[in-house]
Amino acid sequence: MEPIGIIHSPYKEKKGIPIQGIFKREVEGWIELREEYAGGLKDLDEFSHAIIIHYFHKSEKEAIEGVPFLEQTKHGVFAIRSPHRPNHIGFSVVKIGSIEANKLYFTEVDMLDGTPVLDIKPYVKYFDSRDEVKCGWLDKHFKNGNVSSKTIIH
Amino acid sequence: MEPIGIIHSPYKEKKGIPIQGIFKREVEGWIELREEYAGGLKDLDEFSHAIIIHYFHKSEKEAIEGVPFLEQTKHGVFAIRSPHRPNHIGFSVVKIGSIEANKLYFTEVDMLDGTPVLDIKPYVKYFDSRDEVKCGWLDKHFKNGNVSSKTIIH
Repeated sequence: MEPIGIIHSPYKEKKGIPIQGIFKREVEGWIELREEYAGGLKDLDEFSHAIIIHYFHKSEKEAIEGVPFLEQTKHGVFAIRSPHRPNHIGFSVVKIGSIEANKLYFTEVDMLDGTPVLDIKPYVKYFDSRDEVKCGWLDKHFKNGNVSSKTIIH
Repeated sequence: MEPIGIIHSPYKEKKGIPIQGIFKREVEGWIELREEYAGGLKDLDEFSHAIIIHYFHKSEKEAIEGVPFLEQTKHGVFAIRSPHRPNHIGFSVVKIGSIEANKLYFTEVDMLDGTPVLDIKPYVKYFDSRDEVKCGWLDKHFKNGNVSSKTIIH
């Protein structure tokens, strides 16, 4: 696998970054695609959101269990969204701003500056959204619409 | 990147497969993880849905534009969900059935039998779901709750 581009983000370090982009919606970043892929962005500007598959390039370990930012309990790595996972693949839903040639501007950023991009897909509610969802250890942290201050990394 | 496991699916060929698992909900598949990763599944059974990142191993080409199954118009590869994309990464939301040691049973399958798995993540509605979504060229195909027969590959 080869990066298809790179993410430019205001987050140069972990501090201040949201655990997911939705918790700091206004922050803007952009993807600079390799120029030969610019044509692949055609018609993506008619979508409001995109899925970004990226590579957690700052993670130097792999752990089979981990403690997420929201609590102090260990869970299996496939039940959390930690970067310290096999293959170090990251997944983010972002809000599309504009597209200019090989540049995709977006908000709802949760990636570090310099993150390599592996794929971009349109977010399709008919495919990707589910109702009647159970979210395991996470449900208690978002009960009654509550949002923990731990959604921003300190 | 290395596969962390393999998908067992009733779909041995493209014919009859849904373009996304949600269009043939009842079909069951399972992931056989490499045994050293079994511990990573701990607590995932408390979630109803998982995100599967996989590798489109049957795609032998890469095209910067493509014609999706639902219509005959070309779009940029990053505005469609075609397997013929840079890095050939696939993304599916599936419904978790049960977990037994290194085996994850699920429904809402849209992968071919033998597909290599790159990552498993919990589907978290607080992170991954969006309201007020525009889905570009796709919206017309799902107007008024309509579902095209082209969501199943013939």
